[in-house]
Amino acid sequence: MRKRKYTVIGGDLRSLKLANQIADDGNAVNIYGFSNAEFDLGIEESKDLMQAIDESDVVIGPLPCSNDNETLNAPFFPDKIYINEVFKKMSKNQLFIAGRIGDKIQQLAQIYNVYVVDLLEREEMAVLNAIPTAEGAIQIAIEEMPITLHDCNAMILGFGRIGKALSKMLHGIGANVFVAARKYADIAWIRSYGYKPVYLDDMDRYLGQMDVLFNTIPHVILEAGSLGALKKDCLVIDLASKPGGVDFNKAKEMGIKVIWALSLPGKVAPVTAAKFMKDTIYNIIDELGV
Amino acid sequence: MRKRKYTVIGGDLRSLKLANQIADDGNAVNIYGFSNAEFDLGIEESKDLMQAIDESDVVIGPLPCSNDNETLNAPFFPDKIYINEVFKKMSKNQLFIAGRIGDKIQQLAQIYNVYVVDLLEREEMAVLNAIPTAEGAIQIAIEEMPITLHDCNAMILGFGRIGKALSKMLHGIGANVFVAARKYADIAWIRSYGYKPVYLDDMDRYLGQMDVLFNTIPHVILEAGSLGALKKDCLVIDLASKPGGVDFNKAKEMGIKVIWALSLPGKVAPVTAAKFMKDTIYNIIDELGV
Amino acid sequence: MRKRKYTVIGGDLRSLKLANQIADDGNAVNIYGFSNAEFDLGIEESKDLMQAIDESDVVIGPLPCSNDNETLNAPFFPDKIYINEVFKKMSKNQLFIAGRIGDKIQQLAQIYNVYVVDLLEREEMAVLNAIPTAEGAIQIAIEEMPITLHDCNAMILGFGRIGKALSKMLHGIGANVFVAARKYADIAWIRSYGYKPVYLDDMDRYLGQMDVLFNTIPHVILEAGSLGALKKDCLVIDLASKPGGVDFNKAKEMGIKVIWALSLPGKVAPVTAAKFMKDTIYNIIDELGV
Amino acid sequence: MRKRKYTVIGGDLRSLKLANQIADDGNAVNIYGFSNAEFDLGIEESKDLMQAIDESDVVIGPLPCSNDNETLNAPFFPDKIYINEVFKKMSKNQLFIAGRIGDKIQQLAQIYNVYVVDLLEREEMAVLNAIPTAEGAIQIAIEEMPITLHDCNAMILGFGRIGKALSKMLHGIGANVFVAARKYADIAWIRSYGYKPVYLDDMDRYLGQMDVLFNTIPHVILEAGSLGALKKDCLVIDLASKPGGVDFNKAKEMGIKVIWALSLPGKVAPVTAAKFMKDTIYNIIDELGV
Repeated sequence: MRKRKYTVIGGDLRSLKLANQIADDGNAVNIYGFSNAEFDLGIEESKDLMQAIDESDVVIGPLPCSNDNETLNAPFFPDKIYINEVFKKMSKNQLFIAGRIGDKIQQLAQIYNVYVVDLLEREEMAVLNAIPTAEGAIQIAIEEMPITLHDCNAMILGFGRIGKALSKMLHGIGANVFVAARKYADIAWIRSYGYKPVYLDDMDRYLGQMDVLFNTIPHVILEAGSLGALKKDCLVIDLASKPGGVDFNKAKEMGIKVIWALSLPGKVAPVTAAKFMKDTIYNIIDELGV
Repeated sequence: MRKRKYTVIGGDLRSLKLANQIADDGNAVNIYGFSNAEFDLGIEESKDLMQAIDESDVVIGPLPCSNDNETLNAPFFPDKIYINEVFKKMSKNQLFIAGRIGDKIQQLAQIYNVYVVDLLEREEMAVLNAIPTAEGAIQIAIEEMPITLHDCNAMILGFGRIGKALSKMLHGIGANVFVAARKYADIAWIRSYGYKPVYLDDMDRYLGQMDVLFNTIPHVILEAGSLGALKKDCLVIDLASKPGGVDFNKAKEMGIKVIWALSLPGKVAPVTAAKFMKDTIYNIIDELGV
Repeated sequence: MRKRKYTVIGGDLRSLKLANQIADDGNAVNIYGFSNAEFDLGIEESKDLMQAIDESDVVIGPLPCSNDNETLNAPFFPDKIYINEVFKKMSKNQLFIAGRIGDKIQQLAQIYNVYVVDLLEREEMAVLNAIPTAEGAIQIAIEEMPITLHDCNAMILGFGRIGKALSKMLHGIGANVFVAARKYADIAWIRSYGYKPVYLDDMDRYLGQMDVLFNTIPHVILEAGSLGALKKDCLVIDLASKPGGVDFNKAKEMGIKVIWALSLPGKVAPVTAAKFMKDTIYNIIDELGV
Repeated sequence: MRKRKYTVIGGDLRSLKLANQIADDGNAVNIYGFSNAEFDLGIEESKDLMQAIDESDVVIGPLPCSNDNETLNAPFFPDKIYINEVFKKMSKNQLFIAGRIGDKIQQLAQIYNVYVVDLLEREEMAVLNAIPTAEGAIQIAIEEMPITLHDCNAMILGFGRIGKALSKMLHGIGANVFVAARKYADIAWIRSYGYKPVYLDDMDRYLGQMDVLFNTIPHVILEAGSLGALKKDCLVIDLASKPGGVDFNKAKEMGIKVIWALSLPGKVAPVTAAKFMKDTIYNIIDELGV
């Protein structure tokens, strides 16, 4: 791959790891927004935003990009970095890549004529991120359960990206893996992979045998009825983003332990998460021919 | 599931197995079109088409339905069974299910006001059929190769249904599995499943190390250049339907052994293939609320 | 299996779980030595040792049996339970089963004419205990490493019981598994299972590529030379019992993180560990025809 | 490894492959006993036995060594090669390696003061040979069964080398794997690997559910009672060497299909089998410091 010039602005530990990994590949990398970090940055920080952005081919923002749609998410920086300041300084041949770029930021980008790409909309990024998510879920399960995952009954709700990665790993550890899905084709895939298929509508009939339940479906699927069908000591790990898949209040009332585990990739494996970001960024550049 | 009345007309051994499996589930089943079969049918054959079809809820034709778009594919029957005769005898509440129902037969069905469903257009059927296809491919590979699949280098071209089922089994036997695909998301999945990902455009660089190559892509992808990159004793198994994925003449010229393996499910595992047909037919009925 | 009368004396949480599991199988169970436990025992505690032991077929001591060779290991009991008191009260038809019964206790048993069996000397117990040990090691690795186990390079030293269970699980999660062993037959097994075989004498050549190293060999195998061959951020998890397999001082000096993880089954999965104890006790009884 | 001089005398296709593989590693190799072979030998054949043996470090005989304890097993040679002639021509620093060297040949070796090693007595050779044996068994099963191995019920009798290799591959293909064994420790291993454990004494209770049965136990274990417990269409594949593990007459009488599959490695994968011979020969040399 041709060497390029990158700028990494703001973000958490993953962004720094990312900057260093891109530099290790032989690219020039400027970083900005890390002056409060109390560890070795690995790369000298630019003096100001202008210096950081100038002559760069690709400007990489945080993941997620912003919490207020105005400033970049920059936990290691004492001041605010306004997104419109960044866009203003960018030329039209520069590319802006970050995670979860909402409508407001998209509009801002159009005003400043900046081409933006949302990392989290990339299918390969989502597929890869399912790997550390699944490992994090497994870590939690081993930690919390008084029995081994090996030979336990584990059900996964949903057979999307996380469902697929997680079922494979649980099977690899030796769990008896049940996967609940709605579509006939998914049920066929679940059979093909050797897991026990369960129709979602029929799930309650199986819940009483489960030792652990992993939800990956992003709407409330575990309500009073299903929760009532669980064994009292069944652990529920909810991996679905807001609003989650569990009626948390009801579960609490019923004495069922639920762990809502979000944003696992950055917590469980920041270096791997950074690598997946890097690979996806390279794919984007390759596709766009930047 | 509510018991129903089925008719199975024509088809090969799979259709007979299917008829018997449906009967074993407690349904009433008429069969017609097997009078030349020299083995026990398991079910008494109807005297004529009218008797066979009458009062049936579902009429099941062959897979594939027809070779000439006029008569049913009925290898065990001495006479011709005209499709329009079948449709004429069916009432509008009866469902006709068969495999590969072409445009001509679709038109005929409209004329006679018969509701038809093509089994092979069902996603779950295609997913399940990939299982016996993969096993058949493995059988051929073990038979033809002078080395074990275990620890050999095996490349699969394409990561669709057959690619997924086959890569899993080869990995399970202990092969070093390479999968070539075009899309970034497929490459991510291949990584996630622990196989070695190869970009299709880059495939020629890896071909020289392969001991066996399985193609699942249904257009000619192995032309002179790629074939020339193979080791002389690399086995090529083409699983793609017509026109296949290999320039067969060129391969012959170059002394490369190519096996074009088609229609494996019915040959490798007729009973399992019948079961997958049955499961899919039940899904269709369930969906339609027949 | 014929119902019997059991006594569980002393021990930690596992012993209590064990007592309850044996009772759940329909056996009569007395317990003694848990009066300080602050949770529900599930079974009423006997008033004194005599009542507990009387008429029992099998007396089950702690695992490990004792820390001082004089009294039973009874963390939930305020007083001391002297082993010779237990033996004195036992009749010659009663069986005593516990874990790690040292020479002194063996001698005591002979004096009092008590038949004792050491749980930890049972091969099946050791094989089964490797399962929670492997899971515990995996939990630690996911927790401590900044990268995923998936696609990392992991080496296991030794291909005994823990080596076998751990390599299978790591492979199932998607790690690139290297196993180092000394014997040709072990190397053959490692190849057969699809892991990368490494001769122990040759191990240093591979260490520089490893992200995590699991030791299962119970003598110091990782000395200065090998430690020096590791990447600075390679995690070392030592699963070997005393004296462990790592020169801990040298590792500290060199800045290499080593985690010495002992007695994982009871910590990681007390309920499963109790079940394995139970299964082994039943095997012992079956073999002895008690 | 230091280069040496080898002689390969007699044997089938594997011996020729072996000779060529050893030569490919940079060693000098003489061959003798292949003059009737109708394919390219790859290496020029020595004119006579003396020339072939002279100055060689290691003389490699056939596998099995002999069918009559007098002459070497040399299917591609028109004349007889007497073993005592070979031994007579060997000096005391030369090593003789072959397969299944019976007592008579051992005695002959002592008389001529020749150091002999039996390849088939080497544990690593037996472990590795289980791999092609397992693949061959799988090929037969796919070929003979009307259902897929995927999701079928398969029982393996015995958990030795072949049992271990075969259970892993069947599990990898997606079969429901049952393994019957006698020892508690084996049952523990079977649980650990995630297969369904069956006590041999209890096996008949499970036989009625099986679709295929693989025997690896080398004495008659499937007698009338067990055979009668099988489904009529259960396939039995006997992998045990003589006398086999099935009462063949009784099975025939009962209409149960039994395939006695012997010597699979050489038939299924001669090149891999030769490689395993080579690896083992190198280990022997390494151990002996020849």
